[in-house]
Amino acid sequence: MPTIIESTQNMRIKMFAKMKDKRYRDEWRTFLVDNEHLIQEALKANLVKALLYVDSHPFKLDPKIEEIKVTEAIMEKLSSTSSTAKYVALCKYMPDKEITGNRIIILDDVQDPGNVGTIIRSAISFGFDGVILSKNGVDLYNDKLIRSTQGALFHLPVKRCDVLPEVRRLKSEGYYIVGTALVNGCGLSNIMEREKMAIVMGNEGSGVSSTILMMSDINAFIEMENFESLNVGVAAGILMYTFRKK
Amino acid sequence: MPTIIESTQNMRIKMFAKMKDKRYRDEWRTFLVDNEHLIQEALKANLVKALLYVDSHPFKLDPKIEEIKVTEAIMEKLSSTSSTAKYVALCKYMPDKEITGNRIIILDDVQDPGNVGTIIRSAISFGFDGVILSKNGVDLYNDKLIRSTQGALFHLPVKRCDVLPEVRRLKSEGYYIVGTALVNGCGLSNIMEREKMAIVMGNEGSGVSSTILMMSDINAFIEMENFESLNVGVAAGILMYTFRKK
Repeated sequence: MPTIIESTQNMRIKMFAKMKDKRYRDEWRTFLVDNEHLIQEALKANLVKALLYVDSHPFKLDPKIEEIKVTEAIMEKLSSTSSTAKYVALCKYMPDKEITGNRIIILDDVQDPGNVGTIIRSAISFGFDGVILSKNGVDLYNDKLIRSTQGALFHLPVKRCDVLPEVRRLKSEGYYIVGTALVNGCGLSNIMEREKMAIVMGNEGSGVSSTILMMSDINAFIEMENFESLNVGVAAGILMYTFRKK
Repeated sequence: MPTIIESTQNMRIKMFAKMKDKRYRDEWRTFLVDNEHLIQEALKANLVKALLYVDSHPFKLDPKIEEIKVTEAIMEKLSSTSSTAKYVALCKYMPDKEITGNRIIILDDVQDPGNVGTIIRSAISFGFDGVILSKNGVDLYNDKLIRSTQGALFHLPVKRCDVLPEVRRLKSEGYYIVGTALVNGCGLSNIMEREKMAIVMGNEGSGVSSTILMMSDINAFIEMENFESLNVGVAAGILMYTFRKK
């Protein structure tokens, strides 16, 4: 039998609404998803703890997942977009995973949620094994980020941490670290593929940090006819396609 | 001497404010730009007809450009974003140009302003000579699109028209037309570069129209490890990098 909640002032509903705020999400390691396709992807990834709906829902739920029947007004309060969601899933954060495998992408303070979402989709397409994100970059559970990955995010190993110790670890494990720079370094088409590679993309404004550019095995630039900075999602896509898993 | 306007109810100010609406922009072939960097770019491209400001402005203006001194309230009324702009430039539409040169990108109903903006930046980077946009696609003077190109838009030949007659024209002029598809067709890395190429990118949901896929010389797919659709801006970037001008 579902739990029934009818007041927008209910304590749990108030807590759920607070999860629009990153501080609360991080404290509780919990986030909301309110789009049918994204909820399906979160269910596949075993992240859903409770499902809120008004009349009925189309999902097959494990009995461990709590069902909560609520009102339209509550749905409106919890919806992330201007239109009221039909379902809202309460999800737990993905566990931080040690990132291994032959292809790794590292995001050194990439800030825009749409860019990070796009990079995650490309990473999956090109067979990358995981993403390492710096702590100062975008919030991984930002609503726009999740939507722009179309749920792909839930299926890729992700680790959020200080990037420098990770770069050191990867170097000691024999990874070939490819930094990216607008100038200097080596033209992408001249870089040989290696068995184990980690590609580092930098902040939209300032690029990859100079420490990492120094520690990397090589720094790549994307050959251009006119000097015009590329969108970081496009640049990452070109690098990941070049070194895709085959 | 500048024109001075102090009322938000002034007839010209009301007309300027209407330019937030595509219908009026298209009717008058005129649009507003309210970011300092974008105004500089519009000035370089000779598009500015009048400049509105409150106290003073940092621009070097040709005497043909009207200067209009206005109030904070008027600026607020004309600003595109939540913060009040310091300057607003009234600009004329770019003239439609016949697109020639060895590298052309065709956007067949690409809808998202951010995607089109990103593609325009990449097109300039990789030495493409112009962009052909279908009439059903995004509005070229959409505020988000202009901002996402950072003004690069003003410097690339663009033609907005029915795409099919253009594809026919390009074929008769000896262009090698590369359609894009998720499956079927030829892996990108197996496609030979030609002297004159036109690449067609399709709508975010439905892809390139079947008529164009039939008329093209070859249809390319981007080789992937996992089947996951790429963002159209990333896909366009990979194709344009592959066939960049060298």
